[in-house]
This record gives sequence, structure tokens and C-alpha cells, in this order.
Amino acid sequence: MDIADLGKRILAGERRALARAITLVESGRTDHRAQARQLIEDLRGHDRQALRIGLSGTPGVGKSTFIEGFGLMLTEQGLKVAVLAVDPSSARSGGSILGDKTRMERLSRERNAFIRPSPSQSHLGGVARRTREAADLCEAAGFDVILIETVGVGQSETMVADMSDLFLLLLAPAGGDELQGVKRGIMETADLILINKADGDLKTTATRTCADYAGALRLLRKRPQDPEGFPKALTVSAVELTGMGTAWAEMQQLTDWRRETGHFAARRAAQARHWFEAEVREGLLARLRREPVKGAMAALALQVEDGGISAVAAAEELLETYLGETREA
Amino acid sequence: MDIADLGKRILAGERRALARAITLVESGRTDHRAQARQLIEDLRGHDRQALRIGLSGTPGVGKSTFIEGFGLMLTEQGLKVAVLAVDPSSARSGGSILGDKTRMERLSRERNAFIRPSPSQSHLGGVARRTREAADLCEAAGFDVILIETVGVGQSETMVADMSDLFLLLLAPAGGDELQGVKRGIMETADLILINKADGDLKTTATRTCADYAGALRLLRKRPQDPEGFPKALTVSAVELTGMGTAWAEMQQLTDWRRETGHFAARRAAQARHWFEAEVREGLLARLRREPVKGAMAALALQVEDGGISAVAAAEELLETYLGETREA
Repeated sequence: MDIADLGKRILAGERRALARAITLVESGRTDHRAQARQLIEDLRGHDRQALRIGLSGTPGVGKSTFIEGFGLMLTEQGLKVAVLAVDPSSARSGGSILGDKTRMERLSRERNAFIRPSPSQSHLGGVARRTREAADLCEAAGFDVILIETVGVGQSETMVADMSDLFLLLLAPAGGDELQGVKRGIMETADLILINKADGDLKTTATRTCADYAGALRLLRKRPQDPEGFPKALTVSAVELTGMGTAWAEMQQLTDWRRETGHFAARRAAQARHWFEAEVREGLLARLRREPVKGAMAALALQVEDGGISAVAAAEELLETYLGETREA
Repeated sequence: MDIADLGKRILAGERRALARAITLVESGRTDHRAQARQLIEDLRGHDRQALRIGLSGTPGVGKSTFIEGFGLMLTEQGLKVAVLAVDPSSARSGGSILGDKTRMERLSRERNAFIRPSPSQSHLGGVARRTREAADLCEAAGFDVILIETVGVGQSETMVADMSDLFLLLLAPAGGDELQGVKRGIMETADLILINKADGDLKTTATRTCADYAGALRLLRKRPQDPEGFPKALTVSAVELTGMGTAWAEMQQLTDWRRETGHFAARRAAQARHWFEAEVREGLLARLRREPVKGAMAALALQVEDGGISAVAAAEELLETYLGETREA
């Protein structure tokens, strides 16, 4: 594969080149990884900057409908929109979200939209790396907005928040005034909480839920990266397409403020640092999955199980003999 | 410090030697770590086997009162009982559970009881290693039962379950028939669920809560390590000391069955394997916190933040230059 040529075609905004490049970064093959690294390195230095919007919402809150409606609104404004998905269940099952494209049928037919289902990877760390790289590729290809969606399960929310410029939480109207068991940590991560389904019978409930969340957000400590009034809670209706314009205006206002005050760049810098540190840890631990360490570790594990050697002594032996580690003292 | 002598005194059951040895394994000092490793290695090969009982319960369920009552019942039967604590909050605050001994005043005065507060460590992995080693030391010192208690927060429950022969969940009677938001994963880990406070006004509620949990446990898939009827839910009263004998009889029945069928030994073997693997990973990642890697990593991180180098390229450089890593392709 001609990586230099692929890079040029991505910068020219060729969708087929982009799709091919994402397939490349999703591959676990060693030669593909080297090509992917080369491609990402080749593409550095362009001055394009997309707005990366992370979006989390449990199944049933109308995430696909929201993304389709929101995406179509943006493409009608002449913006290029990419949709990436991080599905923690695909990390377990090895399969990607079924029908990601059919879920967003109208958006997927748009010339200025690009929808990519979740990569099937064996672990969440792998999904994180691939999704970051796919976002980099979309940015190089000239997309203005990159939506990175995930379901609110386990660590995938934190992961998506850590690769986004803005993080949105999409929630359903809740009966009563209970806060749907949203974890405090995620509340603190959200820049905007959107209460979906503010239509028909649920409209009143949505408004009340929104007020509850707005109240809860006011109780959180003011963050330096927020102007006055943020984070906010808003109501939207993905089916009636109401509230979408307001939500987008709030996102733009927040982004403009962060760009001016340097918080936007600082967040990207901190994310790059976290990515670097994660890559180092992952690279180091990858040695345990390669020979001769893998075999030696398996053999020692059997001895540990038999009681022939203690766990600590066995670990020391492996580290000293195969991993160039010297005993601490 | 004469490690060989300390080992002999521990095997002779000297409490002061045991306390001193636990202080040694809790130390983060490099020379102390080496001595601790030597001590643990010296003590291998004794044929004593304590029953390690993990116990989780959120603050307010009466954990201390239960442990005191349960511990006193065991010492009255002539058994030697050690109590160790894993407090995830101490991993954050750097302080151990305050007043661990005063919480269990009567038990702490017993000649056959030994109570040790949670070690203050900077991270949960460190707490796990120290607690495992402390349990090994208590076993060598001839204790019959080692109670390892934790609060039901974050990963500390899983950690304690992974160093115990039996895992108990202590719960309070719940109003209504709700299952107190106990995570399914923890339900599946429990060998026995004890509903405490089955006394006074709460007795009826406790009985109903117990029936609810018994029903929920029946819906779980039968585990090979359980005889018919396990895991069970029982009511106890830590203040009236009722149900304690029944709970202990159930624990003994389960343990006897597991010893006879080989599941007891298999669980210990698997735990030793996990410990070995965790030690290897931890030992490998420890290199990142030592010079010259630490300094090089900090310098590269700054370059990554500035955009001078990509996260992936920087990680590759660090792995190749300082960590003896060769590029994958």
C-alpha cells in the first residue's frame, strides 16, 4: 500500500481513502500497525481542527435519532460531519454495533457525512487507540465536527470524554425527581446534559428532569474550563428536532470561549499526554504477550499454581531473566 | 534486622514478631521490601492453613460489631483469629482506618485475637500486595481464621474476594423488596450473604430482605465450587449475637466440601497465579517510575503537549531507547 499517496488522498478529502485508512488503523496486524503509524505521522502538521464531540447515552435514550437529527442540521449548514462509535460490548463480543449505518439511514446518505461503526477489538484499550487514530484521520480529511458516541457502560464514557473537546450526556426524561443513577464522576465530566424526548406526553417530565439536572449541576464545583453558566442542562427532541439549534449554539459558545482562553488547546495537550502515557504502558505490557516471555510466564504460572515457587519469587525471576529487570535491592 | 530469627519467632506464634513483620511488609522502603521478600520465602513450606474469610459491607451495616461478635465466638471455641482491613479510602488519604482497634475493643483484648488496621498505601495495588503478605504471615503464625474486611467501594471487594477462601457480604435490612443496589458481579462473588440487624424493630424486615436475597441467589447460575444450596443468605444479629453459630456452621460445611472436592486448593492455586501475574505487571510498570525512564518520559510528555511529537511516536521512542523495546515491525 502506498502510504504517502493514501495520506495525500485523505488530505484531499477522499472518502474512500479515509475509509481505507480507518480499516488500516483498526487492523491488529503488525505490518498494518507500522503502516498506520507512518500514515498518522505523515498527516501531522496540517492546520485543520475539527470539533470533537463525545456523546454518551444508554440504549433507549434515542442516541441514534439524536445523532441523525443533529448531524443533518450540521450538514445543512454546510459542515462536514463524521460519526465514530465506541461500543464496549464489541470489545467483549468481537462484533461491531450491528446496523450502525442503517440506524442513521438519512445521515449516511449525506455527501458531507461519514459514519463508521465501532471497531471490533479484543480490549477497550485497543478500541481507544483505534478511535483516537480514526478521529485524527477524520480531522485530516477536513471534517468540521466529529461525533464520538458511546453507551454509558463501564469505562467507555471516561475514554470517550478523554478524546473529545466537548462531552455531552444524553438522558431520557425520568419519572419523579430521581437523577437516574447517573454517576457523579460522569456528571462532572459532562459539558452539556441533554434531556431527550422533550415531546408529546413526555414533554413536561423532560422539562422537570432538565430542571433537576440543572440544579444538580449548579451544586458541582465551578470548573476553570467553563465560562459562567456551564455546564448546562437543556431539553431536546430528536424526533421533533426541537432544541437542536439551541444545543449547537451552546456548544459553539462554550468552544469559542475555551479557544479564546486557551482551555481548548490545554485540554488537547493534556489528552495527548495521557495518550502517550497509555501507549507507553500498553507497549511495555505487550511484551508479556510475546515470546519468549509469554511461554516463560506460562511455565512459571504453572509452578506457582503447584506451590513449587511463590508468586513473588516467580515474578522476580521472570522480571530478572526475561525482562531486563534488576531486583529492587 | 535478623530475618531468619524473625521467621522462627513468627512460627512460634509470637505476636510481637508478627506485628513487626507486618510493619516490614507494609513498608515501601527498598531494603525493607527485600527483607520482606526474604521473610516470606523463609516461611514457605510450613503446613499451616488458615481459613481466610473476606468480608465486605458498607459503613453502617454493623461490620465492626459483627466481626467483634463473630471473632469472640471463635476465640471462645479456642480458635486463633486475625483481623486485617483493606480500606480503599486509606489508599487515597494515606491514613489507615482510625480506631480499628477501639472499634473492636473486647476482641482486641483477647489473647487469641490479632487485629491489624489497614495499611496506608498510595495505591490499591500496593494495599493488595501488603494484605496478601500479611495474611501469609498470620497463617505462618498459626492463626486458624483470618478475617479480611473491606468496605464495598470500587475494586476493593474484588481484591479481597481474590485473596479469600470464602467471601461474605454483610448487608443491612432493606425497606421494601429492593435489593439495595448490590452489584450483580459482587452477588456472584459472595459465598454467603448475611443480613445483619435481625433484631428489635428490624427483625421482620431483615427476614424479608434475607428471603429476597435467597431468591436472587437461586436465579444465579450454579457454580461448580458450590455444593447444593450454596450460595446462601442468612440473617444475623451482631448485637444480640444470634445467627452467628449457624453462619459459622455454614462456612465450615462449605469449606469442608470444597476441601474434599479439591475446589479449595484450586481456588488458592488460581489466586496465586493471579498474584504472580499482577506482580509481573506491577514490576514492569514500576520501571516507568524510576530513572532514567522517569525523566525521559517527563521530557517526552512535554514535547507531546507542545505538539512537537505525536503521542504514538513519543511512546515508540521511549520504548525503544529506554525500555529495550523493539518496534513491532
